[in-house]
Amino acid sequence: MTAYNDQNIFAKILRGELPCLKVFENDRTFAFLDIMPRSPGHTLVIPRAGARNLLDIREEDFMEVARTTRVIARAAMKAFAADGIIIQQFSEPASGQVVFHLHMHIMPVKEGVTLLPPQSRKEDPAVLEDHAAKLIAALKA
Amino acid sequence: MTAYNDQNIFAKILRGELPCLKVFENDRTFAFLDIMPRSPGHTLVIPRAGARNLLDIREEDFMEVARTTRVIARAAMKAFAADGIIIQQFSEPASGQVVFHLHMHIMPVKEGVTLLPPQSRKEDPAVLEDHAAKLIAALKA
Repeated sequence: MTAYNDQNIFAKILRGELPCLKVFENDRTFAFLDIMPRSPGHTLVIPRAGARNLLDIREEDFMEVARTTRVIARAAMKAFAADGIIIQQFSEPASGQVVFHLHMHIMPVKEGVTLLPPQSRKEDPAVLEDHAAKLIAALKA
Repeated sequence: MTAYNDQNIFAKILRGELPCLKVFENDRTFAFLDIMPRSPGHTLVIPRAGARNLLDIREEDFMEVARTTRVIARAAMKAFAADGIIIQQFSEPASGQVVFHLHMHIMPVKEGVTLLPPQSRKEDPAVLEDHAAKLIAALKA
């Protein structure tokens, strides 16, 4: 497996070199909206520590990603009046991984609505801002 | 959300009322092969504690599921000479959840080979036994 490379876009987001729609952060993890959401409210949770994917992340960092994922999933159900949640995580190109900093996908789903294909459509920034505000409010509630 | 019902098939597997191809267990989690694998080595990790899905599981139980998931994913890469790993977890029927005891799917993938659709084909028991033996050996290595 290729070593972690800190020039990936999520590492740049963590360092503040690229903008994002942040919804949550703590000492070990960071969460923001996917700009090409497969469903309304599609959120990514990443560790602050550099890790390519599940195959090289340290145990404690992955457990913290899991802790944050659970918090976001529950809030997203309320924020987006969702009927369910899909969690996905991809390791290595063969799996469909595109950005090589571990990320957990949290996708709120509605009954009868299928997910958009991955990376199919860049969402309107105003819609993303509205979704971020809704998720942040649900996280505070 | 419907309350947890301990008559689901994974709860029965945990209680030993139904057979399974176990590959790993510890105090908080249990892992076994999916009998309708979407890829060779498709494994499920579940908490021992009753939890319908990510929306009701206790924080510490989900973190332990994550810990075991990471261990299995790494071993599965070796056991099945995989090129990558896909992790999925579904909460509520709208997401595709079929068995209502939280489970994390760990699917080893090969470059250029697509996953079978969910629940499409029951694997030959001899193949599953061989896969379980390979994964158990990789977990011990």
